[in-house]
Amino acid sequence: MTDHFSDRLADSIRARRSVVCVGLDPSLDRLPADLRDKHAAQAREIGAAAAVAACFEEFAGGIIAAVCDAAAAVKPQAAFFEQYGADGWRALAAVVRCAHDHDLPVIVDVKRNDIAATASAYAAALFGGAAGLGAESAGLGADAATVNPYLGEDSLQPFVDRCAEGKGIFVLARTSNPGAALLQEKEVDGRPLFLHVCESIARLGAGQRGAHGYSDVGAVAGATAPTSLQAVRAALPDHFILIPGYGAQGGDAGALRGLASGDAAGFLVSASRSIIYAYEGGGGDYRSAAARAVAAMRDEIGVSW
Amino acid sequence: MTDHFSDRLADSIRARRSVVCVGLDPSLDRLPADLRDKHAAQAREIGAAAAVAACFEEFAGGIIAAVCDAAAAVKPQAAFFEQYGADGWRALAAVVRCAHDHDLPVIVDVKRNDIAATASAYAAALFGGAAGLGAESAGLGADAATVNPYLGEDSLQPFVDRCAEGKGIFVLARTSNPGAALLQEKEVDGRPLFLHVCESIARLGAGQRGAHGYSDVGAVAGATAPTSLQAVRAALPDHFILIPGYGAQGGDAGALRGLASGDAAGFLVSASRSIIYAYEGGGGDYRSAAARAVAAMRDEIGVSW
Repeated sequence: MTDHFSDRLADSIRARRSVVCVGLDPSLDRLPADLRDKHAAQAREIGAAAAVAACFEEFAGGIIAAVCDAAAAVKPQAAFFEQYGADGWRALAAVVRCAHDHDLPVIVDVKRNDIAATASAYAAALFGGAAGLGAESAGLGADAATVNPYLGEDSLQPFVDRCAEGKGIFVLARTSNPGAALLQEKEVDGRPLFLHVCESIARLGAGQRGAHGYSDVGAVAGATAPTSLQAVRAALPDHFILIPGYGAQGGDAGALRGLASGDAAGFLVSASRSIIYAYEGGGGDYRSAAARAVAAMRDEIGVSW
Repeated sequence: MTDHFSDRLADSIRARRSVVCVGLDPSLDRLPADLRDKHAAQAREIGAAAAVAACFEEFAGGIIAAVCDAAAAVKPQAAFFEQYGADGWRALAAVVRCAHDHDLPVIVDVKRNDIAATASAYAAALFGGAAGLGAESAGLGADAATVNPYLGEDSLQPFVDRCAEGKGIFVLARTSNPGAALLQEKEVDGRPLFLHVCESIARLGAGQRGAHGYSDVGAVAGATAPTSLQAVRAALPDHFILIPGYGAQGGDAGALRGLASGDAAGFLVSASRSIIYAYEGGGGDYRSAAARAVAAMRDEIGVSW
């Protein structure tokens, strides 16, 4: 039997009774001062970028260990690591491994895409398998990734092809940012553009379905646009929806009402800053604060299915 | 006076009498056998990924030196490097430096985007400036990058903000792949979606204009859809258009007729495989074959302005 990403995610959601996905978006100026100081002391020896990367790796590792009981998945944001070049990329790969050590599925938030030949290379970067000299490249070893649909279905297909090996994707449908509506809500043939993207997701994901009944091809739809989020659910009853925009960006539990579908909710709610920087509010150790914040968010959402 | 990306590009086009942009998309299985063998011998010592990265770096360096007289710019494709993780990323940064040593503007083809806070981090990864421990991170040090518009104008703004420091962007409008039409050609308010993107480009790029009169915010439009390409030009007379899809993907010089605008053509025609793998056709050294291929392409396009 094939190992499906959607099954691993469903099992994690059920085992943890949680749909919370913790975003790992490390920003140097918001990390605990003692952690920064410790790594700054190394900067002269190993280089400034390597010191930041080591700092991110330790911070993210601390968060992962703290949230792994109450979070169903983690979502490292590649951009924050890429800022530090090769060192950052190495830290990102280490974060993926750390999450796996804690039995957490990893969705790398990369929003990649390109024409098919190049999209295959991106898929290899994220999931492994690039031809090597002596050995294939392992890539980041992620379980799933976010992808951008602007180039059309042929550009998504190379990512979909990797679902057969247990990987998954979340295609941007309706994002959570203020300017999302500009293109995504444009009316095309009587319905908003993002529903055309959902039709592509349904087509591409139809053949990739696990034992729980969910497709390995999911959608991204923000909690900041509740009506659109519900429309995405209606269009994709058997697909996971990755929901950003909860908490810091303004979305709330009301936006999630009636959204559960299937035997494992069928969605993930992502939060980053409100969890990883929870220590800024009440002080104390960043790990304990994150553990409390993620448990509180899990309980606030209180999904039952 | 501000150093504008658009001026550096215009000067390069005029000095070289060429609008050719050479895409650097290294694929291990298409590299010269002697180059692969040489680096494969190192793989046991330095690791498989590092050996591939070193091979890519040498290959791309050879191409850059060979094409720098007849190409106006180079466009490394990040995906092919990212496949090899931190080693690949380090090679990509080295390729950017090598192109600068040959006085060639570098457009990194990354097709990035995200919500604003994250887009700023991507911009730092590409252009430098991330906060460090002791020193700012230099990033890839690219001159310009390709970006994806699906998330709207607020997601593009952090990249546009970097134009004030001499950077540039090319926003995907109408891509060259077969599936591009699915979303990009959808009719919205009486015109195709990609023209709405062009309106965003015009708005965002209006304040970023160099001495040659071009904006630092350009568009991507493929030679495979000539009518759409002409529509992009009509919408953006003072913006550079980066044109993929010439050669291997089927676009030809006919698609470029009447496209020149301003004192430096106002467009770049990108080709990758037909130049960097030109040696596969006639044999011989890959560098000489690339030099001949890029000169032939420059002459075939034969822009006069």
